[in-house]
Amino acid sequence: MRDFSNDHSALALNTATLGHNLDGFGAGWSPEQVIDGCAARGYGGVVFWRREIGVNAIAIGERAKSAGLKVAGLCRSPFLVGPLAPKDKDAIRDDFRSSIDMAAGLTAPILTIVVGGVEPGTKGMRDSLKLVAERVADACEYAEKVGVRLALEPLHPVYGGDRSCLVTVRDAVDLCNAVNATNLGLAIDVYHVWWDTDLAAQLKRAGENLIYGFHLCDWLSETRDILLDRGMMGDGVADLRGIRHAVEEAGYNGVCEVEVFSKDNWWKRDPNEVLDVVVERFRAVC
Amino acid sequence: MRDFSNDHSALALNTATLGHNLDGFGAGWSPEQVIDGCAARGYGGVVFWRREIGVNAIAIGERAKSAGLKVAGLCRSPFLVGPLAPKDKDAIRDDFRSSIDMAAGLTAPILTIVVGGVEPGTKGMRDSLKLVAERVADACEYAEKVGVRLALEPLHPVYGGDRSCLVTVRDAVDLCNAVNATNLGLAIDVYHVWWDTDLAAQLKRAGENLIYGFHLCDWLSETRDILLDRGMMGDGVADLRGIRHAVEEAGYNGVCEVEVFSKDNWWKRDPNEVLDVVVERFRAVC
Repeated sequence: MRDFSNDHSALALNTATLGHNLDGFGAGWSPEQVIDGCAARGYGGVVFWRREIGVNAIAIGERAKSAGLKVAGLCRSPFLVGPLAPKDKDAIRDDFRSSIDMAAGLTAPILTIVVGGVEPGTKGMRDSLKLVAERVADACEYAEKVGVRLALEPLHPVYGGDRSCLVTVRDAVDLCNAVNATNLGLAIDVYHVWWDTDLAAQLKRAGENLIYGFHLCDWLSETRDILLDRGMMGDGVADLRGIRHAVEEAGYNGVCEVEVFSKDNWWKRDPNEVLDVVVERFRAVC
Repeated sequence: MRDFSNDHSALALNTATLGHNLDGFGAGWSPEQVIDGCAARGYGGVVFWRREIGVNAIAIGERAKSAGLKVAGLCRSPFLVGPLAPKDKDAIRDDFRSSIDMAAGLTAPILTIVVGGVEPGTKGMRDSLKLVAERVADACEYAEKVGVRLALEPLHPVYGGDRSCLVTVRDAVDLCNAVNATNLGLAIDVYHVWWDTDLAAQLKRAGENLIYGFHLCDWLSETRDILLDRGMMGDGVADLRGIRHAVEEAGYNGVCEVEVFSKDNWWKRDPNEVLDVVVERFRAVC
């Protein structure tokens, strides 16, 4: 481990950056190992995935806190609509509530919502977005009671069919305004929004009250796998400084969460190396 | 071949729908076979790719006309910027002019422009879009002299890195307005724009003067290959009727060009079957 003497407490690690051990990717570090690795390097926070947590939410949350790390968030809600959502609306609601409960147990202030793709039997985005609004509104009430905020994450339009009918910040702000709950906002991920020349204007529309999260990685010019070939910051074509500036100009002052899905590159490396490189790149190019 | 007694002269075939023989895909029909197959089924037009034409532009154009088909367009310009563009700006300009000459020889009124991705050494879209504007402005002057119009095709944001820094209709209209040439407009392809809830508003902004082309296929919910797994109309999640309505509401009254890249499905079938299915689907779901 190298020496990073300056403060980078604005940096949070999304554990997906080290690979998802349940998929057979990554070195298989436990949540405790991730916490220790991040704390030793001065990260300010960590964001977990549900499958890593199991029934240990409270213990893992306390472990992070005692190591000096915020649990900045939890990934993620079930898909709420589309071909990959749970089998019916009751199953969706129940799993959505379970994910909110887990966030509360971890003391994660934010649960990320990935809304799911185009609802079977419909065409285009509009019908699906209406269903999403209903299901999110219901969850906002539940989450309010346990002190969790919900962050809608617009995904890149390439996922529009199966994973997210919400594909622009513009639509996410519209959705927040339509639901009009005090605990509903959005998460901005450079992978999903880097191409959008309307981004700064939409972030301004969102403002500090709606921006709950900011995720970093990079878009590789020649992306080989649309799900698992994200770049480390600096290796791609996204204007990371420009996007971070626009997010902060809009009023966001939370952590910068690094989330790099990379099965053929970063997930094959020693997690210690990856954690070091994340800090270096965060300081050099973001 | 089945009987299609009603008129569908609004339908044009982009030859890519039958596979590109030079890539080893498709049945290898010659331009003459494609012309005969389309004419026999009452298609109104055909759109070729440069590599199919070689030095036979004038002869192929005349052959189409005598068969009763319009040559509705030609694909396409070289990439003008980005990692896949020709080696320098002179090479880009020369190849751009060659493609314009070929369109003129074919009597194709429109040449499609795919602008290329993010220029090496830059980040984000803006610098690349400025270079595109300069190179397109130069080509517009040349094309004016030979009676060819240029259609900027915004591609899906998934191609933003390598193939097109122009990824929204909004940016394409802005680019047309910035260049301000009487022979520059845009081509709307449902594959590239289906996800955009701002589409109808942007088409209205473009209006009949700027919409030069309309391309049909479908976005499969679970797309397996981002370049060569397009769906036949009706098999995906795009709101084809809604998009066609918005395009025509904005004033477009040209052909509907079917362009299905599909290496594992449609390109493996008999071109006669594909040509029949295109007509059926065009009538049933577009």
